[in-house]
Amino acid sequence: MLYKKPFSIRVKIVRVKKMTDCQGDREGTDSPMELYERLNLQGDNVRALKTAKADKADLDAAVQLLLKLKVDYKQMTGQDYKAGCPPSENTAVPNNGPAADCADGEDSVDPWNVSTTNAKGVDYDKLIVRFGSSKVEKELVDRIEKVSGQKPHRFLRRGIFFSHRDMNQVLDAYEKHKSFYLYTGRGPSSEAMHVGHLIPFIFTKWLQDVFDIPLVIQLTDDEKYLWKDLTVEECHRFAVENAKDIIACGFDVNKTFIFSDLDYMGASPDFYRNVVKIQKHVTFNQVKGIFGFTDSDCIGKISFPAIQAAPSFSNSFPQIFGGRKDIQCLIPCAIDQDPYFRMTRDVAPRIGYPKPALLHSTFFPALQGAQTKMSASDANSSIFLTDTPKQIKNKINKHAFSGGKDTVEEHRKHGGNADVDVSFMYLTFFLEDDEQLEKIRQDYTSGALLTGELKKILIETLQPMISQHQERRKQVTDETIKQFMTPRPLNFNN
Amino acid sequence: MLYKKPFSIRVKIVRVKKMTDCQGDREGTDSPMELYERLNLQGDNVRALKTAKADKADLDAAVQLLLKLKVDYKQMTGQDYKAGCPPSENTAVPNNGPAADCADGEDSVDPWNVSTTNAKGVDYDKLIVRFGSSKVEKELVDRIEKVSGQKPHRFLRRGIFFSHRDMNQVLDAYEKHKSFYLYTGRGPSSEAMHVGHLIPFIFTKWLQDVFDIPLVIQLTDDEKYLWKDLTVEECHRFAVENAKDIIACGFDVNKTFIFSDLDYMGASPDFYRNVVKIQKHVTFNQVKGIFGFTDSDCIGKISFPAIQAAPSFSNSFPQIFGGRKDIQCLIPCAIDQDPYFRMTRDVAPRIGYPKPALLHSTFFPALQGAQTKMSASDANSSIFLTDTPKQIKNKINKHAFSGGKDTVEEHRKHGGNADVDVSFMYLTFFLEDDEQLEKIRQDYTSGALLTGELKKILIETLQPMISQHQERRKQVTDETIKQFMTPRPLNFNN
Repeated sequence: MLYKKPFSIRVKIVRVKKMTDCQGDREGTDSPMELYERLNLQGDNVRALKTAKADKADLDAAVQLLLKLKVDYKQMTGQDYKAGCPPSENTAVPNNGPAADCADGEDSVDPWNVSTTNAKGVDYDKLIVRFGSSKVEKELVDRIEKVSGQKPHRFLRRGIFFSHRDMNQVLDAYEKHKSFYLYTGRGPSSEAMHVGHLIPFIFTKWLQDVFDIPLVIQLTDDEKYLWKDLTVEECHRFAVENAKDIIACGFDVNKTFIFSDLDYMGASPDFYRNVVKIQKHVTFNQVKGIFGFTDSDCIGKISFPAIQAAPSFSNSFPQIFGGRKDIQCLIPCAIDQDPYFRMTRDVAPRIGYPKPALLHSTFFPALQGAQTKMSASDANSSIFLTDTPKQIKNKINKHAFSGGKDTVEEHRKHGGNADVDVSFMYLTFFLEDDEQLEKIRQDYTSGALLTGELKKILIETLQPMISQHQERRKQVTDETIKQFMTPRPLNFNN
Repeated sequence: MLYKKPFSIRVKIVRVKKMTDCQGDREGTDSPMELYERLNLQGDNVRALKTAKADKADLDAAVQLLLKLKVDYKQMTGQDYKAGCPPSENTAVPNNGPAADCADGEDSVDPWNVSTTNAKGVDYDKLIVRFGSSKVEKELVDRIEKVSGQKPHRFLRRGIFFSHRDMNQVLDAYEKHKSFYLYTGRGPSSEAMHVGHLIPFIFTKWLQDVFDIPLVIQLTDDEKYLWKDLTVEECHRFAVENAKDIIACGFDVNKTFIFSDLDYMGASPDFYRNVVKIQKHVTFNQVKGIFGFTDSDCIGKISFPAIQAAPSFSNSFPQIFGGRKDIQCLIPCAIDQDPYFRMTRDVAPRIGYPKPALLHSTFFPALQGAQTKMSASDANSSIFLTDTPKQIKNKINKHAFSGGKDTVEEHRKHGGNADVDVSFMYLTFFLEDDEQLEKIRQDYTSGALLTGELKKILIETLQPMISQHQERRKQVTDETIKQFMTPRPLNFNN
């Protein structure tokens, strides 16, 4: 999910929706995006009429409609319509600013590439504005605590899951005893998973436990086959290997279904029907705008987004939800996956399904620093789930980018910079005790804690964590995998 | 299959294959098309180097390679390389002429549209040249007779299946006891099927009988959902209804598997794996060139060709062929479906599968004449399988375009024109007796046979044929449909 293969394009949230015959069963009132596109089309119309030297009455009528649509747009979004600058999803709040194409942010974030020039990492507040999502404010964290009756997970307390869509709606319904389900996933591009890959799973397990709800985990082995120089068999094998690491996170087999696309697509007519429904309602123009596909891309890539979208709809899993299509889905994922789900949310009402809600995490930094890319092929860019205690120690001591000063004397005098220190960042992900973490931050900043000492704390946090993971993974038998990966009913009360 | 919804584009056989990372596992030597595209790319290279004012040595080397490729191309195809004019599949035979884009044929033929201005119908000899297929010559018909030990079907004797790809290869192998299988299909756009829709099925049944081989029949209900304003449920229902008419053609349940895409895609991981393999090896550029898709088309349409291609490979049906991927496929279909299978044949060697062979039929003319379109929504454009004897009589008498003269006197004196007479054309499809047909042609041409009398012969041919079909269809029970449509082993000896 995190820091995938470079595929260098800027995120665009331009979604050019032409009203083709592919998009029959639209419903509901216009969204800002729909209005924006009606404006585009009407602009085209007026130009065409002018070019064709059309009858004056026709031209006047077309111009009148254009002006009316512009007024409607301004009313709805608080912004003037401007060709080429589509509204962000939240344009109803005018301050949420313009879309990616019109913004001048320096970070580039999409499902295949994340890059920034800032040592602190991506500017997530800007990303919220660009993507049109909502910030996870303290009120929301408090509300999750109240509704679940549990202390919020450290990822929530520390702003690691920093952005969301429709979380309040999910909680409203949950309070009224209307349950929901969780969906997350992983692209199995290799056998090796690193600690960063665990973030969505650690958090999803927590959500599953505190809300007592079913979870579906998609392994996009078909995606990896399409994007990488791998065979179908290799990708499927990686999916099964990765499933072992995922299961080792402690998911409840009675509430969790893990599936490989290569298996499940060919094992569930209901899943395929949803894929086709989505594929009918998304044009090449749209995926070009959202994902940056080009005419040279294979048709598999172009149609793949529908396959990542389909698990967002509960009737893709009749064995779990008995064919019901109204059960809300909540997707915890890294923010780079949001383009898929913006598309999904755009399609959902048009095919009669609820929009999935989302909880977005920040990115997990590479050892070398938050502005560099982690790479599964570079063993030194992260801590892998297969690393020995010694490898963990060596990697952190040798490669973890330090915010400390060059000499002990200077460090004692001026203190270190925790904001760019990768060891400290990793501790924010993995050290449970808030007070201890805050003390480390203060001591490091004051210079009381040296870089070597900080690294030692991280090493002593990760070594047992990874060892325990390895122990649990060893206990995952073929039989266990088969259980998790067999389509079957799950515990679900609604 | 025949005369589908207008989707007005010219057939192009331009297949722009860029060597993207989608096309990893290429194998074998260059085909003319591959060489053509290497030339395109090298031309681009040279231009880029010139624009960039590159080092002279680099530029010279690039130009040298370009010239060498041009010589290779001329040697391989007998033609000079010309940008924008790709080779046809058979360019090894230089006389087979240039590709569609370079031809100035007037007929337009693709899977969604067939049109011609000629009352005799499409010029099929030109089509063979444009599509790069081979004509079904008398030698081939004789050979089919020899190998099968049966009198060739009237569709072969009369040039209705007029074009082929690799038929001799299929027969070579069959003579050496290497069997093959048949694949044909139908797009279930409505409940109503007309007599023209039966052509591929009548012929396929004959092939199944004389060669004693398995047959798979694809009902592309997913395609119809993507192209038409229909629900998934409607398309699936049409598929089942159409299956009844297909079964009524007399197929052997022990040798025939009929499947709806909406069902089988979600019931066969092996089928989906082939779909993904094909989708990885076809770019948007290619389907744009072959099918005329645009950026406004939905991603479902864009990726659909892979789904029509997949049944061409035997390991899409492990229940029949036990996972073997080397069993040759023969596809009897109307020539308008050829673009799908040109694409399939292009992909096949790159994913390690044999190319399917093809037998192409001419189009079945509308009652109003060979240059008009048949339409399932216009009940008068053809004889439907649900028509009563009275409807058949009325339609033919009222609507069948006549090649006769305006008055009996003139007709007696000058004779009629059988070549444009739709009743006579229909008889070439359905009247079994060659001598009787020839006598009708002569009598009509001489004026001895009047239009009314010719129509009477057709009416008396079609009425019992349709009645018998209706009888057989009535006997198709839900149980029978289930049998045919259940993935299962078939009789297959190889």
